[in-house]
Amino acid sequence: VKDLPKRIITALVFGVIVIGSVLGGQYTFSLLVTAIAIFGLKEFYGFCKLNNNSFNSGWIVPLGVTAFLLFIAYFNGLISARYLFVATVFPFLVMITELYRNKNNPLNNISAAIMGWVYVLIPLILWGWSAFSLNSEGVFILDKKYILGYLVVIWCSDTGAYFSGITFGKSKLFERISPKKTWEGLIGGLVLAVVAAVVIDKYAYHSVLDLTDWIVIAVIIVVAGTFGDLIESMMKRSVGVKDSGNLLPGHGGILDRFDSLFISAPFVFVYLLITGRIF
Amino acid sequence: VKDLPKRIITALVFGVIVIGSVLGGQYTFSLLVTAIAIFGLKEFYGFCKLNNNSFNSGWIVPLGVTAFLLFIAYFNGLISARYLFVATVFPFLVMITELYRNKNNPLNNISAAIMGWVYVLIPLILWGWSAFSLNSEGVFILDKKYILGYLVVIWCSDTGAYFSGITFGKSKLFERISPKKTWEGLIGGLVLAVVAAVVIDKYAYHSVLDLTDWIVIAVIIVVAGTFGDLIESMMKRSVGVKDSGNLLPGHGGILDRFDSLFISAPFVFVYLLITGRIF
Repeated sequence: VKDLPKRIITALVFGVIVIGSVLGGQYTFSLLVTAIAIFGLKEFYGFCKLNNNSFNSGWIVPLGVTAFLLFIAYFNGLISARYLFVATVFPFLVMITELYRNKNNPLNNISAAIMGWVYVLIPLILWGWSAFSLNSEGVFILDKKYILGYLVVIWCSDTGAYFSGITFGKSKLFERISPKKTWEGLIGGLVLAVVAAVVIDKYAYHSVLDLTDWIVIAVIIVVAGTFGDLIESMMKRSVGVKDSGNLLPGHGGILDRFDSLFISAPFVFVYLLITGRIF
Repeated sequence: VKDLPKRIITALVFGVIVIGSVLGGQYTFSLLVTAIAIFGLKEFYGFCKLNNNSFNSGWIVPLGVTAFLLFIAYFNGLISARYLFVATVFPFLVMITELYRNKNNPLNNISAAIMGWVYVLIPLILWGWSAFSLNSEGVFILDKKYILGYLVVIWCSDTGAYFSGITFGKSKLFERISPKKTWEGLIGGLVLAVVAAVVIDKYAYHSVLDLTDWIVIAVIIVVAGTFGDLIESMMKRSVGVKDSGNLLPGHGGILDRFDSLFISAPFVFVYLLITGRIF
């Protein structure tokens, strides 16, 4: 692990930026998720280009970001929910513009463009939506404790999995896609994530989420997060790259760093929804 | 046009079924759009298989139909809006199951599966949503006049385009994708669609939509509908088929018959939304 110092410095700087953005309030948090969305889309479409999908990122990325910003504007109380539906025409605008591009395999090009929006934007929208909906009575208020708790659980899960994996790792979890992952790593991540959930509940009182909620959230983050990691590995393997990008020295790209968020956020959102914690 | 009698009989039978379903009320209409959704998805995934995309339609179609039925249940007052969000995890379930399939090019397989839902289900959901929202004060009521008016405009547009095209057709509209389409046909379709809009407004009083609305709807149906036709031709050309299916003898499949609905519905929905006609 010769680049460990570089990895640690990057992690610290990145962690400070992320936590600072959350503590800074709704506008800096909005900026943070928008930045993640933009870099995530660029990295995803980088994969697709290696996969011989062709599209005009100069149009697909801004259009996706516009859809994303509609939601951000809604969370910040700038527009009403009805205007969110404007984004429903965006996939059809992509189909219309594909007519004029005259490229091979338009079906795959359109599909990949829309897949990028689904994979990157939906989780970030739902993550933000839950963050702004908890604790709110009609008016959205950013729930910093929830977002910070979510991030702490992710980081504890990653750390627990890493150290448990290198110490006890023996039984392969999913060798075909991610040869280094082990069941022991997964269990170590689960244990540390649940410990984090218990500590968060004990020391950071939350008016809506109780201990059960935090433990369920931790389990979803570890399980869905592991799938998220495997899905990203599958996509990278499919196009023959190791990292999604090089935005974060030693950590790859934004998709590498947030792979567990991208799959866990929709499931956590639905959990909070059906238990009546949001809406 | 040796199969003209067959075409006419099919069109009549099909027209009677469609109009009967609308007149029958919310349940038969719900059944109609669900049937269109199921056949539409099957035809779309048929294209994708010719395109070397691989997926388990026995899982993708029922999952998409489940998402669709959530909306249908919502329109019929059976569930509240919050449960619609359950569908947000469905694309991620597709990604997770792809891990276990071990097929070539998982990125394209997932993308095509999700594209099918976007292309077929979103327009039908928005079409139904606008049909149930007009004239409603909180409670959804199926607006039969709106749906019948919409269908009459589509059929007049097709008929006007067909006869104007064969009579005056000279200037190619988009030869690369649809060699038979002409500007003269488009204009003929536009004229007959606008005439239909004026007649509908005059003889079928609508408490929400006025003459301007009907004319705008007619223009959107003709313009977006033409794009819809071209987009479907582009996809069929891309995979080397002539018709999307053979459900309707002489008319091809459901996607061929409703190609203009699939692109016009989202744009009409957004028009009704931003003018305050719905919600």
